[in-house]
Amino acid sequence: MERIDDLQLKGLRIIQDTDLFCFGMDAVLLSTYAQVKPGEKVLDLCCGNGAVALLLAGKTQAEQITGIELQPKVATLAGRSVELNGLSDRVRIVEGDLRELTEKSAYDVVTCNPPYMVSGSALANPEDAKAVARHELCCTFSDVAKAAKQALVPGGRFYLVHRPFRLVDILCTLRENQLEPKRMKFVHSYVGKEPSLVLIESIRGGRAQLNVESPLIVYEKPDVYTEELKQWYYGE
Amino acid sequence: MERIDDLQLKGLRIIQDTDLFCFGMDAVLLSTYAQVKPGEKVLDLCCGNGAVALLLAGKTQAEQITGIELQPKVATLAGRSVELNGLSDRVRIVEGDLRELTEKSAYDVVTCNPPYMVSGSALANPEDAKAVARHELCCTFSDVAKAAKQALVPGGRFYLVHRPFRLVDILCTLRENQLEPKRMKFVHSYVGKEPSLVLIESIRGGRAQLNVESPLIVYEKPDVYTEELKQWYYGE
Repeated sequence: MERIDDLQLKGLRIIQDTDLFCFGMDAVLLSTYAQVKPGEKVLDLCCGNGAVALLLAGKTQAEQITGIELQPKVATLAGRSVELNGLSDRVRIVEGDLRELTEKSAYDVVTCNPPYMVSGSALANPEDAKAVARHELCCTFSDVAKAAKQALVPGGRFYLVHRPFRLVDILCTLRENQLEPKRMKFVHSYVGKEPSLVLIESIRGGRAQLNVESPLIVYEKPDVYTEELKQWYYGE
Repeated sequence: MERIDDLQLKGLRIIQDTDLFCFGMDAVLLSTYAQVKPGEKVLDLCCGNGAVALLLAGKTQAEQITGIELQPKVATLAGRSVELNGLSDRVRIVEGDLRELTEKSAYDVVTCNPPYMVSGSALANPEDAKAVARHELCCTFSDVAKAAKQALVPGGRFYLVHRPFRLVDILCTLRENQLEPKRMKFVHSYVGKEPSLVLIESIRGGRAQLNVESPLIVYEKPDVYTEELKQWYYGE
């Protein structure tokens, strides 16, 4: 079922289809963690229904934001949201496979909220749009890193959100692709709980030295966000 | 200057020389993080003045604990502490270079509190015992991982404490040596601060899946340890 949701940022809206994958907190946090300077060009890999691309358009002064999405239905939805918000001059959605990306050294920043689960780790159907968004059925993290490396200018930044249980895969794959992890932030639902998400900034060709930042805590108590989380959500 | 310190565990004492490297909280946390079952054999690499080996003797029912230390003066000190505590039947200190270790698949558990700093990252003198303990002058983390891999039985556990800024080096090197990181715990001085230490459990030949645990917080407020930290220090 299709619906239009408020992105709670400068009146931006997003068309979502509940039969497909709807964006979550991950996308919002990624769009805040990514540091985009005025005039920069951004590529969002696995852009889904366009949440990260739209939020970056609202939060930053990026000159151009490109989202690439494999699934035709989902890419169409994202394109319609771009039009709905009158952002066609800055944001474009491309339907395509990131493994076939031809652009080289074309972007200052790449972002990605990739499928988290290893393929085969659970029953997953490649015909099912939600499964494709959640499992590495159509691209592995290695494919994502290769695409990011190719698309970025030297010194360009790659921002991603992922699950902590994949951390060794992620950090090793980033380094293998000369995308050196420079900053990392864990997201915990509550103080004293294990982290549920991890945000990572890598620099193409960066020097080895990681800054593990203070954790981001989501809830003060049930249903009450921390002040910091509110700042990440609604701050500019 | 030499002095005898209380290890605050079952009356154990340690001989320290303030001209050499004195043990810190790192060693205590490592000895608690390491899970050693009754009857197991443990090897402590870069054992220094023997703090981890002595604490493991007090905290666990390991059958045998071997500490290896490169620096003759420091190894001698460790050996004297073993005698002082009447632990010569369970703990032995070997003066030697872990790069020349000949034992293979001989230990159930390996522990290490290695030098944290990359060689060349600061002025450091290989004649200076403190510098050797802090900088990778006489062994790199890759040397440590190779020694651990060789010494461990298949399925054996490797526990280490290190600094978060080296995390990418550490995780990638562990995986390269088939020491798969399985558990990781960050240590923060206060809630909301960035971590100052990281504890990691790897399993020789383990399957890829990391459990990033809830953080350990050291201080409730200045000079007041958290209840959890006290449990780590004084619990059994």
